[in-house]
Amino acid sequence: MTHPLLLNASSLPDIPWQDRPAGCSDVVWRYDANPIIPRNATPTSNSVFNSAVVPFGDGYAGDRYAGVFRCDDRARRMDIHAGFSADGVHWRINPRTIDFVCADPEVGKLEYRYDPRVCWIEDRYYVSWCNGYHGPTIGLAYTHDFVTFHQLENAFLPYNRNGVLFPRRIDGRYAMLSRPSDRGHTPFGDMYYSESPDLCFWGRHRFVMAPTGGWQSTKVGPGPTPIETSEGWLLFYHGVLTSCNGFVYSFGAALLDLDRPWKVIYRTEPYLLSPQLLYECVGDVPNVAFPCAALCDGDTGRLAIYYGCADTVTGLAFAKVDEVIAFTKANSLV
Amino acid sequence: MTHPLLLNASSLPDIPWQDRPAGCSDVVWRYDANPIIPRNATPTSNSVFNSAVVPFGDGYAGDRYAGVFRCDDRARRMDIHAGFSADGVHWRINPRTIDFVCADPEVGKLEYRYDPRVCWIEDRYYVSWCNGYHGPTIGLAYTHDFVTFHQLENAFLPYNRNGVLFPRRIDGRYAMLSRPSDRGHTPFGDMYYSESPDLCFWGRHRFVMAPTGGWQSTKVGPGPTPIETSEGWLLFYHGVLTSCNGFVYSFGAALLDLDRPWKVIYRTEPYLLSPQLLYECVGDVPNVAFPCAALCDGDTGRLAIYYGCADTVTGLAFAKVDEVIAFTKANSLV
Amino acid sequence: MTHPLLLNASSLPDIPWQDRPAGCSDVVWRYDANPIIPRNATPTSNSVFNSAVVPFGDGYAGDRYAGVFRCDDRARRMDIHAGFSADGVHWRINPRTIDFVCADPEVGKLEYRYDPRVCWIEDRYYVSWCNGYHGPTIGLAYTHDFVTFHQLENAFLPYNRNGVLFPRRIDGRYAMLSRPSDRGHTPFGDMYYSESPDLCFWGRHRFVMAPTGGWQSTKVGPGPTPIETSEGWLLFYHGVLTSCNGFVYSFGAALLDLDRPWKVIYRTEPYLLSPQLLYECVGDVPNVAFPCAALCDGDTGRLAIYYGCADTVTGLAFAKVDEVIAFTKANSLV
Amino acid sequence: MTHPLLLNASSLPDIPWQDRPAGCSDVVWRYDANPIIPRNATPTSNSVFNSAVVPFGDGYAGDRYAGVFRCDDRARRMDIHAGFSADGVHWRINPRTIDFVCADPEVGKLEYRYDPRVCWIEDRYYVSWCNGYHGPTIGLAYTHDFVTFHQLENAFLPYNRNGVLFPRRIDGRYAMLSRPSDRGHTPFGDMYYSESPDLCFWGRHRFVMAPTGGWQSTKVGPGPTPIETSEGWLLFYHGVLTSCNGFVYSFGAALLDLDRPWKVIYRTEPYLLSPQLLYECVGDVPNVAFPCAALCDGDTGRLAIYYGCADTVTGLAFAKVDEVIAFTKANSLV
Amino acid sequence: MTHPLLLNASSLPDIPWQDRPAGCSDVVWRYDANPIIPRNATPTSNSVFNSAVVPFGDGYAGDRYAGVFRCDDRARRMDIHAGFSADGVHWRINPRTIDFVCADPEVGKLEYRYDPRVCWIEDRYYVSWCNGYHGPTIGLAYTHDFVTFHQLENAFLPYNRNGVLFPRRIDGRYAMLSRPSDRGHTPFGDMYYSESPDLCFWGRHRFVMAPTGGWQSTKVGPGPTPIETSEGWLLFYHGVLTSCNGFVYSFGAALLDLDRPWKVIYRTEPYLLSPQLLYECVGDVPNVAFPCAALCDGDTGRLAIYYGCADTVTGLAFAKVDEVIAFTKANSLV
Amino acid sequence: MTHPLLLNASSLPDIPWQDRPAGCSDVVWRYDANPIIPRNATPTSNSVFNSAVVPFGDGYAGDRYAGVFRCDDRARRMDIHAGFSADGVHWRINPRTIDFVCADPEVGKLEYRYDPRVCWIEDRYYVSWCNGYHGPTIGLAYTHDFVTFHQLENAFLPYNRNGVLFPRRIDGRYAMLSRPSDRGHTPFGDMYYSESPDLCFWGRHRFVMAPTGGWQSTKVGPGPTPIETSEGWLLFYHGVLTSCNGFVYSFGAALLDLDRPWKVIYRTEPYLLSPQLLYECVGDVPNVAFPCAALCDGDTGRLAIYYGCADTVTGLAFAKVDEVIAFTKANSLV
Repeated sequence: MTHPLLLNASSLPDIPWQDRPAGCSDVVWRYDANPIIPRNATPTSNSVFNSAVVPFGDGYAGDRYAGVFRCDDRARRMDIHAGFSADGVHWRINPRTIDFVCADPEVGKLEYRYDPRVCWIEDRYYVSWCNGYHGPTIGLAYTHDFVTFHQLENAFLPYNRNGVLFPRRIDGRYAMLSRPSDRGHTPFGDMYYSESPDLCFWGRHRFVMAPTGGWQSTKVGPGPTPIETSEGWLLFYHGVLTSCNGFVYSFGAALLDLDRPWKVIYRTEPYLLSPQLLYECVGDVPNVAFPCAALCDGDTGRLAIYYGCADTVTGLAFAKVDEVIAFTKANSLV
Repeated sequence: MTHPLLLNASSLPDIPWQDRPAGCSDVVWRYDANPIIPRNATPTSNSVFNSAVVPFGDGYAGDRYAGVFRCDDRARRMDIHAGFSADGVHWRINPRTIDFVCADPEVGKLEYRYDPRVCWIEDRYYVSWCNGYHGPTIGLAYTHDFVTFHQLENAFLPYNRNGVLFPRRIDGRYAMLSRPSDRGHTPFGDMYYSESPDLCFWGRHRFVMAPTGGWQSTKVGPGPTPIETSEGWLLFYHGVLTSCNGFVYSFGAALLDLDRPWKVIYRTEPYLLSPQLLYECVGDVPNVAFPCAALCDGDTGRLAIYYGCADTVTGLAFAKVDEVIAFTKANSLV
Repeated sequence: MTHPLLLNASSLPDIPWQDRPAGCSDVVWRYDANPIIPRNATPTSNSVFNSAVVPFGDGYAGDRYAGVFRCDDRARRMDIHAGFSADGVHWRINPRTIDFVCADPEVGKLEYRYDPRVCWIEDRYYVSWCNGYHGPTIGLAYTHDFVTFHQLENAFLPYNRNGVLFPRRIDGRYAMLSRPSDRGHTPFGDMYYSESPDLCFWGRHRFVMAPTGGWQSTKVGPGPTPIETSEGWLLFYHGVLTSCNGFVYSFGAALLDLDRPWKVIYRTEPYLLSPQLLYECVGDVPNVAFPCAALCDGDTGRLAIYYGCADTVTGLAFAKVDEVIAFTKANSLV
Repeated sequence: MTHPLLLNASSLPDIPWQDRPAGCSDVVWRYDANPIIPRNATPTSNSVFNSAVVPFGDGYAGDRYAGVFRCDDRARRMDIHAGFSADGVHWRINPRTIDFVCADPEVGKLEYRYDPRVCWIEDRYYVSWCNGYHGPTIGLAYTHDFVTFHQLENAFLPYNRNGVLFPRRIDGRYAMLSRPSDRGHTPFGDMYYSESPDLCFWGRHRFVMAPTGGWQSTKVGPGPTPIETSEGWLLFYHGVLTSCNGFVYSFGAALLDLDRPWKVIYRTEPYLLSPQLLYECVGDVPNVAFPCAALCDGDTGRLAIYYGCADTVTGLAFAKVDEVIAFTKANSLV
Repeated sequence: MTHPLLLNASSLPDIPWQDRPAGCSDVVWRYDANPIIPRNATPTSNSVFNSAVVPFGDGYAGDRYAGVFRCDDRARRMDIHAGFSADGVHWRINPRTIDFVCADPEVGKLEYRYDPRVCWIEDRYYVSWCNGYHGPTIGLAYTHDFVTFHQLENAFLPYNRNGVLFPRRIDGRYAMLSRPSDRGHTPFGDMYYSESPDLCFWGRHRFVMAPTGGWQSTKVGPGPTPIETSEGWLLFYHGVLTSCNGFVYSFGAALLDLDRPWKVIYRTEPYLLSPQLLYECVGDVPNVAFPCAALCDGDTGRLAIYYGCADTVTGLAFAKVDEVIAFTKANSLV
Repeated sequence: MTHPLLLNASSLPDIPWQDRPAGCSDVVWRYDANPIIPRNATPTSNSVFNSAVVPFGDGYAGDRYAGVFRCDDRARRMDIHAGFSADGVHWRINPRTIDFVCADPEVGKLEYRYDPRVCWIEDRYYVSWCNGYHGPTIGLAYTHDFVTFHQLENAFLPYNRNGVLFPRRIDGRYAMLSRPSDRGHTPFGDMYYSESPDLCFWGRHRFVMAPTGGWQSTKVGPGPTPIETSEGWLLFYHGVLTSCNGFVYSFGAALLDLDRPWKVIYRTEPYLLSPQLLYECVGDVPNVAFPCAALCDGDTGRLAIYYGCADTVTGLAFAKVDEVIAFTKANSLV
């Protein structure tokens, strides 16, 4: 009994969920016990945010979910950690950073790692993240068990952030969205699409979308793994507005053509969620709501969206896939 | 029984009011139920702030006050809305933006509108606002009923913000204060005075004041409609300080010469109110207190000042005209 | 025997002229003895450039031309001087700055003056220039004899540069082009049109043109007084490109609608002249060719264009009005 | 019964103290009633922060502690005030600024004063602060009683901040740490060491440390007076990280060679305390924790650290000298 | 009779050549009739520079050399043109831009093209250039005859400049050097190496070199096609110094490991040629010497280096491969 | 027969000299064979400029003058070299950099050295220069013979440039002018005065002058060693103007109080010399005229001023001390 809008979706009846609060008409609403992961979730963590979660049925000890988490430590070094959860809300994060297996020390050498995404493709979990290699670029690895991670070649030349894989090959090739950047707090950011026959060599780069205005006037970048629907790939994406006091990160949604995902069919003019509550507005970087993962129940279309809050803690928000799609079509820029 | 310091002032016995709290010695004090207008006051609003309120005796259904409100929607588009209130505290804001009647589509075309002021002159209400016309400039319109608004020519060439009309002609001409700017988050800002015989053509521009130091070290601009007093035009104005983490907006007061309003007689060295409470310090733009309107009771000299808080919500503060004038004279920069 | 393309043009058979050099196919070509005015043309001048020249039939001692000249002195103070010439090529520049007669000392007070234009309207010569009044704005004055100059109100609020009057009223009102700016080396610049019933109050501001790309990618501003032709107002305008080593100023031409001059009918995509010779590329500001005046012979359509070179000296270039119009139409951006 | 790690330390059994909270493993922990000094501690203060406290046994009326406090007033003028306390927690701050006795009015003239430190050397208290003298530099003065203050020559040429004296001569000379800067919100900052035979002439300047990464990636500067221990001079120092929304100030610790204090023996890679609580994250400058003084009990090694919070209020934190030293050695960058 | 240091080198006895002038001890010396290509080499060209030349034996009409030339036109649009020459010094440049054959209009659409390189690999000439595709990236094409050019996929995501192919496969794959950038006048620039099995998909990205100091303190990027020698790949590369008046472009040389070209074996600390003559110091961008091609005679080791001068004209310089290698080894940074 | 205006001046009848050219009325005029030192004066020099020259009677082989020269080599490393001359015009510059004798390797370690001045005080020559020590500061050394140089402690903390000693003690102490800076192309620059009892420890810092406007609107700094006259210390100083294409360096003169040299008695509003000739306008840094030394004949008051040209070569200019003083007094800002 798959949801009529969802394609290739698994039944995930137990993902975190709360019904929309009474009196609320928002398409995306927050978990009432946010943040779900505090800044000191590991003994040395300064903050845990911008992290990725996937179903992981074969976890031991009842675990149903696994994830890769950005934990900045108290030296403010940025690295990623594995974590596990029975319910997707309460998490045990490994206090040790992921130690990647990598054939070439030139590639595997750690500078910094942050903002991971996790994506199941065919037979394994792939992790992509912002990887320091003489500047930020897109690191790639795979794991079967969230214990051993095999690091691949960096996908692109620097400078790039937010590499997000599609959950299946498109036209026979792996596919990735990303947001090329510069080396600092980049004041621009378009989203692009790239393909690879083998996850090693990448090409056929296509422009996807640019900033427009309002909450998405400075940069736009992909968030969670795109969700395949009959209306197109449903992509949650972040947008940035530059106020006189700095960047504000919100997020919206887009529908991308299933076969040519660089074609944007619909794209929300309003944001779906912007930083408004104290844990989103106050922290190491004020005014940030930054989604990196979404769980989707294939039966009901329920969505549980994980998003970083103020670059400090991790929050959870909920939505229904049909409502998000309807809202995106009804409030589209394109 | 007009207040001895006020000239041409109407009796407004029912404006919002709270006495100064016990133990407080501030000249301006906050309403204890701030903010009076939440960010989601309309179904699509992201924020409601930097808005203008006037007495409007002929309102239907018991309304005694009308206003023009800056509502940024959830796409973060900036536009202005009419609103009505029986008590000046509780507001019904029209969820639709104001649809201006304008003869020339070149002038009436919407780019963006924000930070309105409203001013009664002779026989009607005039609205001035920051109007997008290939950059920010000063838009002008009039209304009799806050339902139909007639848009006039833009007062100035770009780039300008904070056009504030005087409530009567001076030397036979309409008069306006404004703050010329650049196209972005302008890092400078002086206040100027201009005159017009007809609200179409403007000239006789005079410099009024520049930033000095402290809370008003980066830019200064006019706030509510000036209030005519025997000591001069009482002007509340905002000032901006640039910290290493961005702009901080506070406000003070000045007294301008009645006949040559570009002559500053007194000007507060201290601020009257700076962003200190959570709703002023946390929001879409932290640390902003930005006044755009003040109601003044001609009998008692009571003042109700409406100010935008953190570019997110609207607050209310109180003062007495004689105390403000005394403080301004006693703590003057000039 | 007026040139068929020119309207309201005077016969000026003796303006400076050289035929196009053999082998040259440029629409605008340089005088072979450039620069015509050296940097030390007055005893205290550091540079003489960005200056305006007009026919002045009633000069004494055989003078046929008068002008207002930007002379920066050796303190690098910027001010304007009157000058006279019998042939438009050899100039006697008054070593003393112009001493304006002005009723209001607030307006007449000197901060700095630069980049003048001169325009005959009806019965007198009007001078417009960039006038320091708490920032750059447009100063205005008139003279009958280039000896006594009467200063009027500044046309606009700061910040503005390059105020250029039209040589006749349009729809009954005086008309001016200008380029609003910021307070420094402005990195943007659009051209606007404004009207005035009396040269004191200005309004009905209209956007004319913005930078596009190439040589005119950073800012565009009006140059000499527009020339009335049957094809529209012929406007020479400067454009700025930002290289990694600074601004490069070139110039092109546009045709504006005769009745609604804010409507651009044609506009050259290529420049007409860019800084290429040593006196244009080397000087106080390298790589500047900046036109402020053009003489046009009504009979032949010959044009003598005066332009500042490297912000240091003054050059002269020639063209024919029919060729310029044909080129503008054939190589238009719009 | 001096603490085995402390050298030249006085017994201060009554300094403010709270034991580490249950469940907390931090080396530095906050006072649970923070902030101890509110922003309006004097009738005209906007904020009280970045201030220095010392034991002051001969206070009248039971005072055991004295201090010099940065109080920005409501004009946001920055100046310093004396204050007294019986317990180091509750303070009476003189509402009047310190009025320095100074022989040369060129030196004594007030521009602004901020971020004081106080240090007992030999027979008197020395105050150092950031002193406005055509730009920020290091002001110096001494007092015996916190009533009369004698101002000395500025130690250095502009531009400098955070001059911190050592509590005894080193190799026969006075010694100071400082952080040379520029004139604005300096985006760099190394720490240096200087010596003086007489507190008038300074030289033998030595580089101490530079920013590295993480929380201390933009600038580093000395905090409280260094504490002499058998492991070296224990220095608390601030570090700054630049996020896309501005500077974040945290603090860590270093151990400097006793005889050549420009030699860093150990230096914490993690911070000891970063802005995380609301009073540290929200205020005039969000996300600032800035220590300027520490009291140390010679018997127990208890430390009470005074630090500015959000450039608005003053907080107190606690630590034990042996734990800080052990942590610094175990988590050292060098 | 191949030169003992050269590998896979063709005999090119007729490349342009002048012996080192008497009294000159420079390793690289200029052609005495520079510039060889003037700015107006085509009827609409503003400048011709940063262009690439190769031997082209099968040219008609006696042509022995072909090339791809950057010609900015008088609108300052940047595009590339084919050209031919009998002697490598005198060039006929096609006044029409290259019209690429491209299957996918998304890829073939022209925004701008500049700074081409040409490289013979196996059976055809490949052209790489900076290609505008929502920002600068590396365009690729091939030609057999310099008449028909077939455009391939862009090699990389934006933002990138200076894609330079190796003249043979390395470890079975095509190989390219490039310099990732941002979208403007990038103030940084490292050189990287990438590989491709098919010239469509690229990966195995490796860092090659970063700026160090002096003439190469801001950015470094590859110049002509690397030359294979027994000492390694000989690479001429440009370096940029930022003076207070802008960027200065010089060039030096490096030797890269033959099998792992991202390993720098030697690299000149001094420049080989910096802008010093008038045609290098004065022009559209002062102080630029930018090499894009080098011809090498396999017999004698003579080198003819083509370099852009002041972003305006094209110059020629000479060297001997053994001297360059010896100098590079003797004056190496590494 | 000392010149009546000069104090403590030596007779130097053979300093370089040319009379003022006919028709020239400038107070300072150029040597007609400028530049006197070409950029390649040593085998590895890229440029020789901003250098200091003194009488050196005891030179061997007929040398009458010695100097310390800034030579940037072809790696664009900045260092200083000794040189000798018989006539002050033709120079033999040691191709090896000065190798300082320094007791403390922390002080003597070379980062970079540039812009030297040389000053005879009492019994030896002192050299001061901009010395790299974790940023630019003022290096100091002495020599008796221009062969062996003894390096002293750096005078100041970073960041500073242009340390210029006075030729005798003032009030019993050594005295120095300098220009505190930041770490890059500093956009500000005031001149300060400092004293030292021993050339090791410095204090009693006094502000001397700030930028005003025109050619000296961005920064001002001391040039050659001040010349003692009955009218005060005659100081040539450089000033910087910021055009849209970068910094322009000119120079003027000031008279400082003999006993309190931080008191400016007169200061030229016009420049004395600005970059106007090709060798001043074209080079590694266009538009720089930067004086570092002046020879003065005590009998005639003739001055030979050495100045760097375009940061590339060295020029010579002439003046008469009485004319310079008269001009300074007649054209003074103060």
